[in-house]
Amino acid sequence: MPTPSFAARYLGRTVLAIGAHPDDIELGIGGTVALLAAAGIRVVTAIVSVPAEYELRSAEAKESAAILGSEPRILLEGGCRRIEDLKNYQLVGLLDALVREAKPAAVLTHGPTDFHHDHVTVYHATVAAQRVMQFDLFSYVPTMTRPVPVPFEPNAYVDISSTMDKKLEAIAAHKSQFYSRGLAFEFYRDLARVNGRMVGVDYAEALAVDKIVFA
Amino acid sequence: MPTPSFAARYLGRTVLAIGAHPDDIELGIGGTVALLAAAGIRVVTAIVSVPAEYELRSAEAKESAAILGSEPRILLEGGCRRIEDLKNYQLVGLLDALVREAKPAAVLTHGPTDFHHDHVTVYHATVAAQRVMQFDLFSYVPTMTRPVPVPFEPNAYVDISSTMDKKLEAIAAHKSQFYSRGLAFEFYRDLARVNGRMVGVDYAEALAVDKIVFA
Amino acid sequence: MPTPSFAARYLGRTVLAIGAHPDDIELGIGGTVALLAAAGIRVVTAIVSVPAEYELRSAEAKESAAILGSEPRILLEGGCRRIEDLKNYQLVGLLDALVREAKPAAVLTHGPTDFHHDHVTVYHATVAAQRVMQFDLFSYVPTMTRPVPVPFEPNAYVDISSTMDKKLEAIAAHKSQFYSRGLAFEFYRDLARVNGRMVGVDYAEALAVDKIVFA
Amino acid sequence: MPTPSFAARYLGRTVLAIGAHPDDIELGIGGTVALLAAAGIRVVTAIVSVPAEYELRSAEAKESAAILGSEPRILLEGGCRRIEDLKNYQLVGLLDALVREAKPAAVLTHGPTDFHHDHVTVYHATVAAQRVMQFDLFSYVPTMTRPVPVPFEPNAYVDISSTMDKKLEAIAAHKSQFYSRGLAFEFYRDLARVNGRMVGVDYAEALAVDKIVFA
Amino acid sequence: MPTPSFAARYLGRTVLAIGAHPDDIELGIGGTVALLAAAGIRVVTAIVSVPAEYELRSAEAKESAAILGSEPRILLEGGCRRIEDLKNYQLVGLLDALVREAKPAAVLTHGPTDFHHDHVTVYHATVAAQRVMQFDLFSYVPTMTRPVPVPFEPNAYVDISSTMDKKLEAIAAHKSQFYSRGLAFEFYRDLARVNGRMVGVDYAEALAVDKIVFA
Amino acid sequence: MPTPSFAARYLGRTVLAIGAHPDDIELGIGGTVALLAAAGIRVVTAIVSVPAEYELRSAEAKESAAILGSEPRILLEGGCRRIEDLKNYQLVGLLDALVREAKPAAVLTHGPTDFHHDHVTVYHATVAAQRVMQFDLFSYVPTMTRPVPVPFEPNAYVDISSTMDKKLEAIAAHKSQFYSRGLAFEFYRDLARVNGRMVGVDYAEALAVDKIVFA
Repeated sequence: MPTPSFAARYLGRTVLAIGAHPDDIELGIGGTVALLAAAGIRVVTAIVSVPAEYELRSAEAKESAAILGSEPRILLEGGCRRIEDLKNYQLVGLLDALVREAKPAAVLTHGPTDFHHDHVTVYHATVAAQRVMQFDLFSYVPTMTRPVPVPFEPNAYVDISSTMDKKLEAIAAHKSQFYSRGLAFEFYRDLARVNGRMVGVDYAEALAVDKIVFA
Repeated sequence: MPTPSFAARYLGRTVLAIGAHPDDIELGIGGTVALLAAAGIRVVTAIVSVPAEYELRSAEAKESAAILGSEPRILLEGGCRRIEDLKNYQLVGLLDALVREAKPAAVLTHGPTDFHHDHVTVYHATVAAQRVMQFDLFSYVPTMTRPVPVPFEPNAYVDISSTMDKKLEAIAAHKSQFYSRGLAFEFYRDLARVNGRMVGVDYAEALAVDKIVFA
Repeated sequence: MPTPSFAARYLGRTVLAIGAHPDDIELGIGGTVALLAAAGIRVVTAIVSVPAEYELRSAEAKESAAILGSEPRILLEGGCRRIEDLKNYQLVGLLDALVREAKPAAVLTHGPTDFHHDHVTVYHATVAAQRVMQFDLFSYVPTMTRPVPVPFEPNAYVDISSTMDKKLEAIAAHKSQFYSRGLAFEFYRDLARVNGRMVGVDYAEALAVDKIVFA
Repeated sequence: MPTPSFAARYLGRTVLAIGAHPDDIELGIGGTVALLAAAGIRVVTAIVSVPAEYELRSAEAKESAAILGSEPRILLEGGCRRIEDLKNYQLVGLLDALVREAKPAAVLTHGPTDFHHDHVTVYHATVAAQRVMQFDLFSYVPTMTRPVPVPFEPNAYVDISSTMDKKLEAIAAHKSQFYSRGLAFEFYRDLARVNGRMVGVDYAEALAVDKIVFA
Repeated sequence: MPTPSFAARYLGRTVLAIGAHPDDIELGIGGTVALLAAAGIRVVTAIVSVPAEYELRSAEAKESAAILGSEPRILLEGGCRRIEDLKNYQLVGLLDALVREAKPAAVLTHGPTDFHHDHVTVYHATVAAQRVMQFDLFSYVPTMTRPVPVPFEPNAYVDISSTMDKKLEAIAAHKSQFYSRGLAFEFYRDLARVNGRMVGVDYAEALAVDKIVFA
Repeated sequence: MPTPSFAARYLGRTVLAIGAHPDDIELGIGGTVALLAAAGIRVVTAIVSVPAEYELRSAEAKESAAILGSEPRILLEGGCRRIEDLKNYQLVGLLDALVREAKPAAVLTHGPTDFHHDHVTVYHATVAAQRVMQFDLFSYVPTMTRPVPVPFEPNAYVDISSTMDKKLEAIAAHKSQFYSRGLAFEFYRDLARVNGRMVGVDYAEALAVDKIVFA
């Protein structure tokens, strides 16, 4: 008998994926987003800000969302913005509003050990947004285009064997990052293989459970 | 739309609850066991050893299992035994065999921060039993008949509002502990109320996720 | 022979309670403040800022302090202010000045694991204020009007059985929070009961010791 | 006004110091024991076992206790014994009995990060002995005759400026360890100086608070 | 200019690798051992015990050591033995003696978060052996033939690109484990690739620094 | 045979020491800097900002660098500046540029547990600067002119017996801090003695390894 699926848990509901910037969601949980979307679940992929090249990167994010099957959103839309230009209470306010509107059954966001200041800020603001309503909360692996070893202790795994390629395709849609700047993202296939072996599947994305509630 | 249930995740499969001694499972996850059993899921409640008054305590454990609706098991059956009389590899061997037979989709056991030496030993042996096959692994709150504050950081909650009373009834079935020795177990109702408020329900049992795998 | 009291330790000296906003002190350590004040100890309850409805919330804080028997203080007085509008060194400066003036034997403040950004900021600034002089430093439980589970590992407990009701009365004095917004604060009675049972009393507030010095 | 003293807290009551072997208590908290005893507090210094040279080392321990002013006790008395020859439940039983008899207001013992297996075992057994009754519980610094760096995070400090010399004298009473084997114990003076500077006194012993209860 | 090599640090000295059982050293640090040996450094690969099939597994260990270029040692030699049959002080005694004889400049052993009870025991005994003399101490990744996810936070990396194949060859020499039992060890190549990418090389083994001393 | 030296590892390369303000580097790693410089290694000692008395403190820093033999640098040069006046991405940008220019084989900076907000900010920005290139990364002890106990768990030690006096001389060069304000810095000699005893030398500076890579 197969392992119960992530999709089964959220069928008929909304899952909210949050990334500080374009490509974070794809690097961290692109396979999971594609898996949920393929099962007919509404997945909102919300990018907090686009720090540079707004038009180009927004277009890439839109293309990537089309590949994954998610509903893209840019919270600080309309032009280049930096998360640090917001006060924390403003960022919490933005996420509160998003949660009120999307009513997510689960939220997937950055984790507290990430080395990027904006990522950690977004994590803490998402934790605070739990005041608005109850939702399952998961953190994903530190995301980076150039490797910096930081600790991450996953305890949840999603089998993305069927969407591994789609994840890489969605990452590749961010051409301005991975082609112009010559960055390799094969790392994410290697990481998914190691995580997959840990739980007996070909490829897996690893998550850390912040809170999960069972009725 | 209600939160997806713990039972929904394990329907048609077996859940294995492990406690070092009689009454541990009831104190830690009695409500969850009752909830799963009520949904028709096979729950094996395995006690590793009975350290004293074998006949009496085995009978109490059997009565408690009848209340919860679980399938009781005593691993070191036939007489009083102490977990410390086993080598660790022997305990791991016992749990390996149990896992091979029960093929659990999830295992719920003691956690690593418990203050009772046997509880911690059982936790580590259960972690090792993951070599045999993949299963979801959860730790439950340190269980005690007399309070000793030790840290426990839950990140999963099961709504036991509908089985709160059954949990207390199952604990009370261990008459030799809670009546002869005059111990109070109302603490566990108070704790469930606090955990419940944390996630917006009347009563909840708190767990720590060691590993959960989603297909 | 009874357990030595918190008041006995600080008799004839000043204890300083710090909260980021109105009602934080009451939720976290209202019972302890009342207990100390009842023993004739000078307790300064310092609120860093009032983020909204300055007149109303200041009045409520004053009323609450009258109930607890403390000497209320608003650090950023005169109007609505946000802690984030201060630089960290400015906040440390404010607390340095307060410590220089009040010469506290003990300071009780927020803890580092709180989910509210301002609370964590106040905690770190208080740690830094130890440069000014030696004082015992304790952190209190994450305070919230709507529950968000975050870890907190207490190791000190104050028996507030005699001031439990006064604590709730002081919380209730913040009518704009708990009546207009329909928030429940019975959670804090439940939490005190669980903490009390841990140490054999009816109700207790839990603290984490940051530093305690014995002559 | 001076900092409230450790002795003031325990006046008229019993403090129990536990060490796995002879000289552990002196290395870890000899200054504190001397300070409490000098204030007229009954201090029981309990050694769990003497692993070698029973007569010699018992005599040294007795001499050391005379210097500190404590009431010495050897739990596994009558000959050389090893803690590992006890099952954990037997060790817990020994400590339970000691606690029942001494009725300590505070217990000071080894900490969980010590590198010596017996020390850690004694720590965990002492934690479990809290089932018997409520007492303040403190851990002391890893003790060693030859240095092995292991983490220890103190949060309580006792000013031992007045008993620093007595502490070294008590350590020196263990002649078979520190003279025959040529071991230096000046390290403990250096460590006390560093800890003292941290809290503004000449010499201090550092402790970690496991539990402290205030009435 | 290339990164300074691990071998450069230990040239003309002895490095001691410790594994609880045959194949642990190969899985954890086979590439590092081969790298050091290739540079002319004496590497002692010490296996604590062979729990089953003594003749067969000893022969395999010898063959593997020949591949890596190390000097093999079985501490509990002469027949099948279990680490749990030793008391901790006996194991520490064994390692003390080994350290006295080999006089290692560095020791590489299991880490404290490993899920195998014997591995953790060996780790703690090695920490204690630092009493004998000063040496650099490193822990290696949890080793397993069937995956069990446990946390491990490396902070040191050894570039094993030149010995990756030799590592796998040495693992494969343990035919009774990896061929008869059909176990896959390709996981270790995948893991080395992920660790390598983290530090900009093809393949790396990850270590956690327990202690490193620089003159 | 002597322990391999820190200098041996970085011969012919550049080591970068980063401190938030003047005197941080001296307090934390003055002995190590002097040791490396004495071995002919280029050491860049980079101060991020001078918060007050720019001319005076810059001159002191220059004098101190002359004593240590390092190449001083002030990142926010030309006048008094506060680190908090930079956005995090600006600070990361500054450090990125420094790393690109200095091409350090190792970077030594503040650690994450420091109580000074600026120190922690500098630590995190340095971690992020690893995106630019690979370098060994070490954190040093929390630095303070007035003691505040905060946890720090070192695992690397540098023998500074030969440069202990030079370290104190360099600290003393910051006359405006340690003479005008009457601050004692003998604490740092005491601390080095305790750390030295831990690893069998007269004086040592303690570091925490964030990342070290061996070829």
